[in-house]
Amino acid sequence: MAEYMTKQQAAEIVAAERFRRGITWRELAEEIGRPLVWTIAALQGQHPLTDEEAGTIGRLLELDEAVVEALEKQPYRGTLDGGAPSDPTIYRLYEVVSVYGPAIKEAIHEEFGDGIMSAINFELDVARRPHPDGDRVVITLDGKFLDYRW
Amino acid sequence: MAEYMTKQQAAEIVAAERFRRGITWRELAEEIGRPLVWTIAALQGQHPLTDEEAGTIGRLLELDEAVVEALEKQPYRGTLDGGAPSDPTIYRLYEVVSVYGPAIKEAIHEEFGDGIMSAINFELDVARRPHPDGDRVVITLDGKFLDYRW
Amino acid sequence: MAEYMTKQQAAEIVAAERFRRGITWRELAEEIGRPLVWTIAALQGQHPLTDEEAGTIGRLLELDEAVVEALEKQPYRGTLDGGAPSDPTIYRLYEVVSVYGPAIKEAIHEEFGDGIMSAINFELDVARRPHPDGDRVVITLDGKFLDYRW
Amino acid sequence: MAEYMTKQQAAEIVAAERFRRGITWRELAEEIGRPLVWTIAALQGQHPLTDEEAGTIGRLLELDEAVVEALEKQPYRGTLDGGAPSDPTIYRLYEVVSVYGPAIKEAIHEEFGDGIMSAINFELDVARRPHPDGDRVVITLDGKFLDYRW
Amino acid sequence: MAEYMTKQQAAEIVAAERFRRGITWRELAEEIGRPLVWTIAALQGQHPLTDEEAGTIGRLLELDEAVVEALEKQPYRGTLDGGAPSDPTIYRLYEVVSVYGPAIKEAIHEEFGDGIMSAINFELDVARRPHPDGDRVVITLDGKFLDYRW
Amino acid sequence: MAEYMTKQQAAEIVAAERFRRGITWRELAEEIGRPLVWTIAALQGQHPLTDEEAGTIGRLLELDEAVVEALEKQPYRGTLDGGAPSDPTIYRLYEVVSVYGPAIKEAIHEEFGDGIMSAINFELDVARRPHPDGDRVVITLDGKFLDYRW
Amino acid sequence: MAEYMTKQQAAEIVAAERFRRGITWRELAEEIGRPLVWTIAALQGQHPLTDEEAGTIGRLLELDEAVVEALEKQPYRGTLDGGAPSDPTIYRLYEVVSVYGPAIKEAIHEEFGDGIMSAINFELDVARRPHPDGDRVVITLDGKFLDYRW
Amino acid sequence: MAEYMTKQQAAEIVAAERFRRGITWRELAEEIGRPLVWTIAALQGQHPLTDEEAGTIGRLLELDEAVVEALEKQPYRGTLDGGAPSDPTIYRLYEVVSVYGPAIKEAIHEEFGDGIMSAINFELDVARRPHPDGDRVVITLDGKFLDYRW
Amino acid sequence: MAEYMTKQQAAEIVAAERFRRGITWRELAEEIGRPLVWTIAALQGQHPLTDEEAGTIGRLLELDEAVVEALEKQPYRGTLDGGAPSDPTIYRLYEVVSVYGPAIKEAIHEEFGDGIMSAINFELDVARRPHPDGDRVVITLDGKFLDYRW
Amino acid sequence: MAEYMTKQQAAEIVAAERFRRGITWRELAEEIGRPLVWTIAALQGQHPLTDEEAGTIGRLLELDEAVVEALEKQPYRGTLDGGAPSDPTIYRLYEVVSVYGPAIKEAIHEEFGDGIMSAINFELDVARRPHPDGDRVVITLDGKFLDYRW
Repeated sequence: MAEYMTKQQAAEIVAAERFRRGITWRELAEEIGRPLVWTIAALQGQHPLTDEEAGTIGRLLELDEAVVEALEKQPYRGTLDGGAPSDPTIYRLYEVVSVYGPAIKEAIHEEFGDGIMSAINFELDVARRPHPDGDRVVITLDGKFLDYRW
Repeated sequence: MAEYMTKQQAAEIVAAERFRRGITWRELAEEIGRPLVWTIAALQGQHPLTDEEAGTIGRLLELDEAVVEALEKQPYRGTLDGGAPSDPTIYRLYEVVSVYGPAIKEAIHEEFGDGIMSAINFELDVARRPHPDGDRVVITLDGKFLDYRW
Repeated sequence: MAEYMTKQQAAEIVAAERFRRGITWRELAEEIGRPLVWTIAALQGQHPLTDEEAGTIGRLLELDEAVVEALEKQPYRGTLDGGAPSDPTIYRLYEVVSVYGPAIKEAIHEEFGDGIMSAINFELDVARRPHPDGDRVVITLDGKFLDYRW
Repeated sequence: MAEYMTKQQAAEIVAAERFRRGITWRELAEEIGRPLVWTIAALQGQHPLTDEEAGTIGRLLELDEAVVEALEKQPYRGTLDGGAPSDPTIYRLYEVVSVYGPAIKEAIHEEFGDGIMSAINFELDVARRPHPDGDRVVITLDGKFLDYRW
Repeated sequence: MAEYMTKQQAAEIVAAERFRRGITWRELAEEIGRPLVWTIAALQGQHPLTDEEAGTIGRLLELDEAVVEALEKQPYRGTLDGGAPSDPTIYRLYEVVSVYGPAIKEAIHEEFGDGIMSAINFELDVARRPHPDGDRVVITLDGKFLDYRW
Repeated sequence: MAEYMTKQQAAEIVAAERFRRGITWRELAEEIGRPLVWTIAALQGQHPLTDEEAGTIGRLLELDEAVVEALEKQPYRGTLDGGAPSDPTIYRLYEVVSVYGPAIKEAIHEEFGDGIMSAINFELDVARRPHPDGDRVVITLDGKFLDYRW
Repeated sequence: MAEYMTKQQAAEIVAAERFRRGITWRELAEEIGRPLVWTIAALQGQHPLTDEEAGTIGRLLELDEAVVEALEKQPYRGTLDGGAPSDPTIYRLYEVVSVYGPAIKEAIHEEFGDGIMSAINFELDVARRPHPDGDRVVITLDGKFLDYRW
Repeated sequence: MAEYMTKQQAAEIVAAERFRRGITWRELAEEIGRPLVWTIAALQGQHPLTDEEAGTIGRLLELDEAVVEALEKQPYRGTLDGGAPSDPTIYRLYEVVSVYGPAIKEAIHEEFGDGIMSAINFELDVARRPHPDGDRVVITLDGKFLDYRW
Repeated sequence: MAEYMTKQQAAEIVAAERFRRGITWRELAEEIGRPLVWTIAALQGQHPLTDEEAGTIGRLLELDEAVVEALEKQPYRGTLDGGAPSDPTIYRLYEVVSVYGPAIKEAIHEEFGDGIMSAINFELDVARRPHPDGDRVVITLDGKFLDYRW
Repeated sequence: MAEYMTKQQAAEIVAAERFRRGITWRELAEEIGRPLVWTIAALQGQHPLTDEEAGTIGRLLELDEAVVEALEKQPYRGTLDGGAPSDPTIYRLYEVVSVYGPAIKEAIHEEFGDGIMSAINFELDVARRPHPDGDRVVITLDGKFLDYRW
C-alpha cells in the first residue's frame, strides 16, 4: 500500500508551501481559473478540485502525489462544532461561515493585512436578484476593516 | 412600581402585533426612516430605538408604554449559544449571524416567502471598498432562493 | 393589546385538544387536504398554515383565535440542540430528523401504537428518481416495528 | 506482537485505496454480493464483514492483512457526538443518521456527484409494510438533488 | 378551551399527592395490576396509562381530570441530556437509565430508604434466557445498598 | 528509560490479539479464574489485574512486557463524557454504564453475535437481596436480543 | 387538589425567610439538633428532613404547610451540570462539591462574611481514620479566608 | 534543537517509572521533603518542582534530562473541562478537585488500595482556624473507604 | 409568608426603574458613596449592599421592600456558563469577565454610548504596584471605542 | 517537500527553548523592540512576527528554520472553547482573555513568581482616554498578587 493523506493534512501542507514560496491565493486562483474564495476554500479542503486543477496546484507548489490526490477527494465539509442554530433559514448562514469562514479570513488578510471586518461599524443589506433559473437572495455585508494595531 | 418588560418580551409582542395587523417590516422601516434589516434587528431587540422611533412604532402597533420603553433600552445582543469560533476575524462573521441572523430570516421571508437562501447553489465574493474613514470589507453572499415545497 | 401566543404554545394546545377529542392526525390532514406528515409537522409548529387551513383546524378543535393565528405565523423550525454534523450533505439528513422527527413519531404511533421503528432489524436504500425539475434523491428507511412490551 | 489497526484507520485506508484505483462503491458491493449502502457503511467501520467478504475487498484494493483483519472486527458504531434526542422513537431516526449518514453521503456522491439532497424541496412519507415476522415502518425521504454550483 | 397539562406537570402532581397521602408506589402498582417499576415509570411520564388505569390512579389520588388525561397521553420519553454513547449496543443501556433511572431511584427509596446502590461493592452478570419469541439478554446488577449516613 | 504504555493502548492491543487468535473472552476469564464481565472490563482498562493474572494473559496473547505491566496499573475509569445525571442514586446507574458498558457489549456479542438487547421489548425489576454484610439492591434488566439483520 | 411545591422552591422560600428574620443557619441547626452543614444542605433541598424537623423549621420561619411538606420529600440531589470527571474515585469528590458546595458557601459566609477560601494559599491532606465499621478517608482542606475587598 | 517534552508527557513517564520500580508516592515525597499530596500533584504536572527537587526525582526514577526539565516548568494547571460553577466561593472548591483530584486519588489508592471515599456514608465540617496572617477556612471531608469488591 | 424576590429579579427591576427615571449609574454610585463599577455590579446582583446602601437606592428608585431586601442578600455570583479555562491564573481573568463583564458594559455605554471597546485596535500592559499588604498586579486594557454605526 | 510546522508547535518549542536557556520574555521583547505582552502573545502564536523579528528570535533561541517560518505566519487566534458570551461589548472582554490570557499569565509569573492576581482582593475601573483618532476605553484591573503557598 502506498501512502495516503487526509484533505485536512493536505490543506496544511498547501498553506505552508504557499506561504514559504510567497505565492498569493489570488495567483493560485488565477492559475486554475477559479474565483478567489472558491479556490481558497477548495485548497482548505472544503471543495474537491478536478484532476487538472489539482495537478496545476501540485506543480506550482511542488507537492507530493499523495497531496495532489487528496485535493481531488470528495470533502467532508465544515469547520464549526456545536451551537448550530436549528432554524434552516438561519442555519444556511451559519453553514456559510462554517464552510467559507476560513477562506474569507485568508482573503481579507491577503487584501488588507492582519485584521478584521468590523461587525460594529457595519451594515448589511438583503436584496432579490432576478435569475432565469430562480431568483437569488443577495446579502451584502459591509464593514470597516480594522487592522491589528497595538 | 409600574410594570416593566424585557427587550425579548417586547420583541415577541412587536412580532405578534405586526403579524396580526398585516403590516410589513418594510413599512415599519419606512415609518421610522431606517434601513430594513436594521429595523427588523432593532425590533427583535438587537439595537436600541430612539425615543421618537419607539414612539412611532408604538402608535402604529398600539403597544403599551412598557413595550415602547423596552424598545429604547440598551440591548444585550446576540442569539447563538456555544460553538463560537475563537479566531477574531472569523468570529466577526459568526457575530453577524448571531446578531442579524433572525433579521435576515425575516427579510427573506417578507421578500421571497417561506424558504431559504441556498448555501449549495451559492457563491460569495470578498472585495475592498475604499472609504475616506478607512477602507471597508464588502462580502457578498449570493445564493438561489429555495422555497419550501412538498 | 390583545393576547398572543407562540407557535410552540399553540402546538401544545392543538395536541391536547386533538387527544381530548379522539381526532386522529390523519383526519386533520384530510380535512385540510394535506399529506399526513406535513400536517403533523405544521401543527407542531414546523410549517405555517394558510389562513383557511388554520381556520379549519380551529373550528374542528374549537381553538381560541390566538391559537389559530399562531398556526399561520412563519416558524422558527427545528427541535434538536447541539451536536449537528458539519458536513452539509449529512446535515440535511439531520435537519430532516430535527424538523420532521416528532411528526414521524406521531405518525408511527397513530398507525402502529406505542413503539419504535427498529434501527437494527433495518435496511435502507438510496435511489435516483428522474424528475423534469431536477432528479431527486429518494432514501427509503425500512425497519421492523417494535412495540413497547413489558 | 504483529501490527494491528483500528476499524477507523482501516476505513480511511479503504477509502483512499478505492479512490486511487477509481473503483466505485457499487462495484465493491457487487463483488461481495451485498446491498450498496450496507457495503459502504461496513467499509466505513459500521458493520463487521465476514472473513470471505473482507478477503475479497482486500484482494481488490491490495490491502495489508492488518486492514483486512480490522474489517472483520466487531464495530463500535456511530458518528455523531452529543445532542441526541432522548425520546426512543425519535432517537432511532437519529441513530440511522449516525450509523448510515456517511454511507448515504457516499452513495449520493457516487450517483449524483458533489451535492446534497434538499431538505426544503422535499417530502416524506410514513407507511406500514405488512411482513410475516412483524409489520415494518417504511419512511421515504424524497428531496431534490442540488449540486454544488458556484 | 378547557385546561390542559403536560405529562411532566402531571407527574409532579402525582408525586406530590402520593407523598401527601402516604400511599406507596407499590400500592399504586397493585391497584392497577402492573409491575412496580413500570408503574413508577408510567406515573413519571415515561409510559402511557390506559383509560382505566389512569382513572384508578385519579380516584386514589383525587386528581383533576386534566391530570388523568395527561397520564394517558403518548409520552416523549427520556430524562438524560447530552453525552449519549454512539454505539447502539451500549446506547440501549444508557436509554434504560434515561427512561427508567428515576423509577429505579424511587423503587430503591421505597424499599431501602434514602441511599444508593453501590457501584463499587458491586457485581454484574450477563446471561442468555431462552424464549420462544427470541432469546433474551438478562443483565443482573447486584450492589450493596448504602444509606445516607452522616 | 524503557518503553511504557497507557492502559487504553494496552486494551486495544489485548483486543486485537485476542481477536486475531480467536480466543474468547470467556476463555480468558476462565484462565484467570475471574467472572466474565469483570475480566472483559479489566482487560478494557477498567480494573487492575494482579501480577499473576496479567502474566497469564500476557502468555496467552504473547504480549510485550509493557502491555502486561499496563494491565496491572491502577485505572482511571469510565468511558462516558458529559451529561451525567446529578442525583447520586441515578448517577450510580450511569456509572455502571460508563465503567461496564463496553464489557457488557462484548459479552453480548460473544454470546449472541452482532446485535443489541432491546430496550423496548424489555422489562426490569428491582429487588432486595438480604446479605449479612448489608442487604443488596438487585436490578434485573431483561430484554429481547435483536440481531443486526438487513 | 391542594397546592404543592418543589424542593427547589421550598429552598428559596426558606432562604428568604431566614434572611428576613435574621436567623442564622447555626441557630436552625441547633433547633433541630443536626450538624451545621447537614442542616444547610437539607434546607437547600439536598437531604430530606424528618416530619419533626420540618415542623420545627416551619414554626421558626412561619412557613406554609406546602413548604414544610416539600422539606420532607425525597430529594433529587446535585447542583452541577456537565463536565463530571468519569473516574469514580475523583467523581466522589466532585459529587461532594455538587451536593454540599452551596452549603459550604453559606457556612463560610455565616462564619467569615462575604469571601472565599483561597485555593492558592492552601494546603490539603489525606489521612486514614480507623473505624470499627471500616476505616475512613479524611481529607482536610485548609485555605486562607479572603474577603471581598475593593 | 534538543528534544523537549510537555509537563503532561513528563507526568505520564514519572507515573510509569514509579510503578515499574515499585516506589511509593510517599517515598518520593520524603526524598524531596515535601507533603504527600503536594508531591503527587507536582509530579502530575500541577506544580513546578525546584531544580533540586526535580534532580532528585530524576535520579530516583532514572529519568531523561528532558523529563527532569519539564518537571521544573511553570504549569498550566487543572484537569476538569466544562461545567464549572460560576460562583467564586463554590468555584474554589471545584478548582481544588480540578487541581488536586488526581493526587487525592493516588493518595487514597496508595493508602487504602483500589476504591473510593464514600460520599454517602460521609460527613463534612467547616471550621475557622485562627492564623496570624489571616484566619483560615478548614473543611474536613470524612467518608468511609469502600474498596472495589466484586 | 410575605413576598420575596431573587437578586436576579431585583436587578432587572433596578435596571428598569433606573432607565425609566433617567438616573445614571454614576449618580447612584455617588449617592451611596461607592465606586462606579462596584455599584453597577452590586445592583446587577454581584455584590451585597449594606442595609443603608440598599435603603438609599430604594428611596431613589421607589422600590418595593422585597427588592430592597434582595439587594442586601449574599449573592451567587457569575454570569458565564461553560468553557472556563482550567488554569487558575487565567481563570481569575475569566472570573473578572464573568462577575464584572455586564457592569463594564453598562459603564462603557453610560460614558461612550452604544458600542464596544475594540480588541483589535487595542493594547494591554501588566505591571507591579507595590503595596504594604502585598504587591498588586495591575493589568491595563486600552482599546479604541467603536460605536455602533450603520 | 521540506518540513513544516504549525504555529502551535512552534510556540511549544519557543517556550521550551526559552526556559532551557533561562532567557526571560522581557529580554526577548527588548531584543525585538516590542512591548512585553505583545511579544509573549506573538510567541504563543497569537500574532505574526515580521521576518526580521522572527529571525532575531530564531538566532537567540537557536531555532530551526521551520520554527522561524511558523512564527511569521498569519495566526488563527484564540485559546478558549465554548461558553462565549453573545453580547458583543462583553464578548470583546472575553476575546481579550482568549487571545492574551496565556500571555498575561506568563507576564505575571515572570514578574511575581508562581501565583495569581486575586479577583477577590480586587478592584477595577473604567475610564475614557481622549485620543485624536477616537477616544479610548481604558479598563484597569488591580488585584493583589497571591503566590502558591502550601
